[in-house]
Amino acid sequence: MKLDKMIGDRFKERPSDCQIDSHALMVRGGYIKYVANGIYSSFPPLKRITSKIERIIREEMDAVDGQEVMFPVVMPASLWQETGRYTSIGSELLRFTDRNKQPMVLGMTHEEAAVQLVREYANSYSKYPFMIYQIQTKFRDEARPRGGLIRVREFTMKDAYSFHTSQEDLEEYYARVHKAYERIYERCGAKNVISVKSDSGMMGGSVSHEFMLLTPVGEDSIAICKECGYRANVEAAKSIVEDLRDENSEELKEVYTPEIHTIEDICEFLKMPLNKSCKAVVYQKNSDDSYIVIFIRGELEINETKVTNFLGCDIHPAVITDDCGLCAGYIGPVNLKVNGEYTVLYDLSLENANNLSCGANKNEYHLTGLDMKRDVPNAEYHDFAKIADGGICPECGKKAINISRGIEVGNIFQLGTKYTKSMKMTYLDKDGNEQTPIMGCYGIGVGRLAASVAESSHDEYGPIWPMAIAPWQVHLCAVRSDDERVRTAADKLYSDLQSAGVEVIYDDRNVRAGVMFSDADLLGVPLRVVVSPRNLDEGVYELSSRDKSLSEKLAPETAVSRLKELIEEMMKK
Amino acid sequence: MKLDKMIGDRFKERPSDCQIDSHALMVRGGYIKYVANGIYSSFPPLKRITSKIERIIREEMDAVDGQEVMFPVVMPASLWQETGRYTSIGSELLRFTDRNKQPMVLGMTHEEAAVQLVREYANSYSKYPFMIYQIQTKFRDEARPRGGLIRVREFTMKDAYSFHTSQEDLEEYYARVHKAYERIYERCGAKNVISVKSDSGMMGGSVSHEFMLLTPVGEDSIAICKECGYRANVEAAKSIVEDLRDENSEELKEVYTPEIHTIEDICEFLKMPLNKSCKAVVYQKNSDDSYIVIFIRGELEINETKVTNFLGCDIHPAVITDDCGLCAGYIGPVNLKVNGEYTVLYDLSLENANNLSCGANKNEYHLTGLDMKRDVPNAEYHDFAKIADGGICPECGKKAINISRGIEVGNIFQLGTKYTKSMKMTYLDKDGNEQTPIMGCYGIGVGRLAASVAESSHDEYGPIWPMAIAPWQVHLCAVRSDDERVRTAADKLYSDLQSAGVEVIYDDRNVRAGVMFSDADLLGVPLRVVVSPRNLDEGVYELSSRDKSLSEKLAPETAVSRLKELIEEMMKK
Repeated sequence: MKLDKMIGDRFKERPSDCQIDSHALMVRGGYIKYVANGIYSSFPPLKRITSKIERIIREEMDAVDGQEVMFPVVMPASLWQETGRYTSIGSELLRFTDRNKQPMVLGMTHEEAAVQLVREYANSYSKYPFMIYQIQTKFRDEARPRGGLIRVREFTMKDAYSFHTSQEDLEEYYARVHKAYERIYERCGAKNVISVKSDSGMMGGSVSHEFMLLTPVGEDSIAICKECGYRANVEAAKSIVEDLRDENSEELKEVYTPEIHTIEDICEFLKMPLNKSCKAVVYQKNSDDSYIVIFIRGELEINETKVTNFLGCDIHPAVITDDCGLCAGYIGPVNLKVNGEYTVLYDLSLENANNLSCGANKNEYHLTGLDMKRDVPNAEYHDFAKIADGGICPECGKKAINISRGIEVGNIFQLGTKYTKSMKMTYLDKDGNEQTPIMGCYGIGVGRLAASVAESSHDEYGPIWPMAIAPWQVHLCAVRSDDERVRTAADKLYSDLQSAGVEVIYDDRNVRAGVMFSDADLLGVPLRVVVSPRNLDEGVYELSSRDKSLSEKLAPETAVSRLKELIEEMMKK
Repeated sequence: MKLDKMIGDRFKERPSDCQIDSHALMVRGGYIKYVANGIYSSFPPLKRITSKIERIIREEMDAVDGQEVMFPVVMPASLWQETGRYTSIGSELLRFTDRNKQPMVLGMTHEEAAVQLVREYANSYSKYPFMIYQIQTKFRDEARPRGGLIRVREFTMKDAYSFHTSQEDLEEYYARVHKAYERIYERCGAKNVISVKSDSGMMGGSVSHEFMLLTPVGEDSIAICKECGYRANVEAAKSIVEDLRDENSEELKEVYTPEIHTIEDICEFLKMPLNKSCKAVVYQKNSDDSYIVIFIRGELEINETKVTNFLGCDIHPAVITDDCGLCAGYIGPVNLKVNGEYTVLYDLSLENANNLSCGANKNEYHLTGLDMKRDVPNAEYHDFAKIADGGICPECGKKAINISRGIEVGNIFQLGTKYTKSMKMTYLDKDGNEQTPIMGCYGIGVGRLAASVAESSHDEYGPIWPMAIAPWQVHLCAVRSDDERVRTAADKLYSDLQSAGVEVIYDDRNVRAGVMFSDADLLGVPLRVVVSPRNLDEGVYELSSRDKSLSEKLAPETAVSRLKELIEEMMKK
C-alpha cells in the first residue's frame, strides 16, 4: 500500500509516559493508540504484525493436532461458580450483571468454557486425547497495566486446552506443545526466549512452565544456574541456604538497642553478620486484615507468592497499628504477642539456626543468642524465601544462581483434574468405569509477543521486525518523486513487486529523504529499496536491510527476483 | 482431518427449543454449543466456516481500500459520553464499572472508537478519503436473542468506517461498498440477498441500506414494489393511502355502543368500512410513562419505529390505568382528556378524512360523522403508519406493494457528521478553513451470515454449504473400513487429496454406512466420495454432491484431478 494513505502518525519525540523502548516505538511509529488505561486500538502496521503472528501460532497448533474453536468473551458467572474461581479470583476477573440482572464475567482465561464445550462429547476413552484452541480477545482487569502492550487489560490471546486419560499421556503431549512453542518463538524471530519452571498460581495444577524473553526491562525475575542449567521463575524457585549453625549456642540475652530499628542497623551495632539475625516481616490477609508474622534469616527476602500459595489467600504488607500488640521494629519469635487472630510462619532458613539476634517484642530491646531449636521448639518451617543472586541452585546444590529479568511470552500448565473434577466431566474407560479426564492448558499473548519482539529487536530509530512477522516485506522509497524518471521507475517497481506477490509499502510522498528514512526506520520493514535521481544516474536502485547487515545495488531488471530471493532467505531465519 | 477425532456430537432429533431450521441444524450438526442466553461457543466446523467468510470479507474490504485495524471490546464510558450515546442507547449497551470504579461499556458498534483512532491523524484534507475496518467480537445485550446465531448477544462482526470531505465523495464511496457487499454475499453463496432502504435508528444519519436475505423465517418485514422495484424495510417505508374523503361531511353524532370495544366491532355495528374509522393506539414513554395517543385510520397499523424516531425516545404499549383519564375502548380525538402530561399524534392517513367513526371519550359511546378538518382543526399530521401488503408504492404510486420477510445480513449507513461533530474531529480544507469530516459506516455479522446461508440452503438432513465457505471441500467416507482393500484405497486417497491441497474430512470409523451418511449430511460438505467394497469391485469410487445435482463414478487414478477441477468450478458459483 501507499504510505501516503496509511492512517496513523509517526514522530520523533519519545512520549514522556513510555518507560520502555518498545512502548515508545509503538507509539512513535503509529502502531497503537491509547484508549483507556491498559486498553489500546491497533493501527494497520500492528494489525498486520499480529495477523502474521496468529497465522504462525495457528499453523503450529494445527501441527500438534489442535482443533480451532471459539469461546465467548462474555460468560455467565454460573460457569465460574462451578469451579469456585468466581469467588477465588480477585478483581482481575471483571464481574458485572446483564440487563436481566444475571451475573456475568469477562473471560480472562477459558478453562471453564473449554470443559463446558466438550463435557458431553468426551464421554468415552476412545475420544481422547484431543486439544482445542482459540485466538480471541480476553480481558483481565490488571491493577497496574504497563509498558504499552507488555501488560494490558484487553488483549488477544491464543489459549489451548488438552484432555487426556492419563498423566503419562498429558506429559507426552505437554512436551509436544513445549516444542511447538519453541518453534513459534523461533519463527516469529523472538530471540532469547527460554522456558522456565513457574508457579501455577490461580490456574492450579503442579507442573508449569513459562516462556521468558530475556530482557533487562522484563518484569519477571528468573533464576538461572550457571552450572547445571536449572531455570525457574524466582516465584517458583526453591530457596536453599547454607547451614550456619555454630557448635555452641550462647545464652539468650536481652540487649538495650535504642533508636535501632532495621535489621542492618542491629547487625552493625552488634557487629554480627546479617545471616546471624532473625528478621520479622509482617503481612495482613486481604480478607480479614488479620496479621501474618513471618520470621526469616536476615539476609533473605520473602517470596510473597510462596506465602500466598501456602496460606491459600491473598495478602498485603501490614499496616502496624498502635493497638495491635506488635512492637514495630522489635518483633521477634520469643514472647511474641499479637492482639486478635494472627498467623506465625517460619522460613526454612531458620530451621537449624542459632546465636541469632532478633527483636525482643519490647520497645528498644533486642535479644542475642537465639537458638531456634531451644527457644522456639514448636516452630514448623516452610520455604518462604526468595532465591537470591549468587545463591545455591536447588538442582545441583552449587552456588551458581544468576537472576535475570524476562517478559513472560507464553505459559503452559499441567492442570490435572482441577477443572474436570469440579465441573463433573467424566468418561468411561475401557472397562466401563467412570474416570475424570486430565487437562493441560497453553497460552500465548499475541500483542505482548509483538511488543516483546520489538523490545528485543530495535535500535533508537525504530523496531527491526523479523521478516516472518514484519508488517511489510519491502519498504520502497521514491526520493524526489516529483522527478519524472524517479516516479516512472518507482511506480513500475511498486507494481512489479505487487504482481510478484511481495508485500510492499510504497512511500512516494514528495518529502525530504530524511523524513522518508526516519518513517521507514519506525516501520521497521526488513528490506528497503531507494529509487532516487542519483541512483538512476548510476542505473541502479539502492537496497539495504533494516538491521544494516546488508547493503547493495540492484539492477532494475533483476530487482524483483533478487528481492524475492532475499525475502525467502530471511523468512527462514 | 479425521472425523473420528473431531470434537462435537451429531444427532438426529430436532431440539425442541429450536424454532428455525438453521438453528436446529447448527445444534444437530455439532456447530454451536449454548453457553448462555444468546451466547454460544463454536465447534471446529463453524469456526472453519466463519474463518472463510472473514477471509472473503477481508479481501473485499481491502479491494475498496480498507485498512484493517483493531478496536477494543471494552471501552471507557467517556468515549460514549462524547457522542451522547452513553445515555441515549437503552440497555442493549452493556455498562459496568472496572476495579477502579471507572464506568465502561462493551462495544456493540465502534463509531466512537473509529473517530478516536483517527481524530488527530486526519487533520488535513489531503489525508482523505480513507476507510478503516476491523473484524472483532461485539456484545449487544439483546432483550430477545433468537434463532441460534441469527440474533445473539455476543457476535463477531466486520465493521468499517469511512471518512470524507464531501457528501459527494461519501456517496461515491458508499456505492463502491454497496457493490463490495453484493460481491461478498455472492462469493459466500448467500442466495436471495437484496438491499433495501432502511431506518438509521440509533446510528444517526439519513441514507442507509440493509442487505436482506429473503426467507419466510426472517424477523424483518420488507416492502417490495412489484411494479417499480422499490424496496425498503417496512420500518423505513413511507405509508401512502388513498384519499377517501366524501363530498359531504355528515354531522358529528354520539351513538350508544354498549359492549363494543374494538374498531372491527364498531365498524360492523355501524355497517361502515374500517377505512372510515379513526382508531386510537396508546403508548407510554419509557422515560416517564407519560401517555402518547396516536390516531390513525382504522385499517392501518402503527409503525413504532416511526413514532420513536419522531419523538426521539423509546416507547412501549400503554397500560391504561383507571385514574389516567383515558376511556379505554372509547378513545377519540374530540374532547380527549388525559390526566397529567401526554402527547397526541395524528397519522397522515387522517389528514383529509371525513365521515369517520371514533370513540367519544365516554363509556359505551362512539361518534360518527367525524371530519378531521372541521372537528380537530389544529391537528398536525405525520407518517406513523406501517406500509401494508397490497398498499401503494411510495415511489411509483401504484398499488403494488408486497411484504416479504428477511434476515438482515448487513447494513451500510451514510452517517453524516453526527460522530465527528460531537467528538470535535476537524480538518483544514484547501483554503485553511476548519471543516468537519463526513462519515459512512458498514457492518456485516459473520456468524449471522453463516446461519443465514444455512437457512437459505439446507434440506431436512443438514446444511448444504456453498464451496467457498464449506468447512471442508471433500467428505471422504470409507464404508467398511475394516475391509483391508477399503482401508488401503481410502487412506491413500485421503493422503493424496491432502498433498494436493484439498481440504478433506475423512470418515474412517467402523460404523454403518447410514450413520456415516447422516453425519456427512449434517456437515454439509459439497462433495462426497465413498470408497466401499462394492465400489472397489467395480474399480471406482463413488462421487456425489451434497446438493444432489451431481453423481458420478471416479476412476481411482484420476480421482484427485477430477475433484480439484470440480472444486474450482464450484468455487466460482
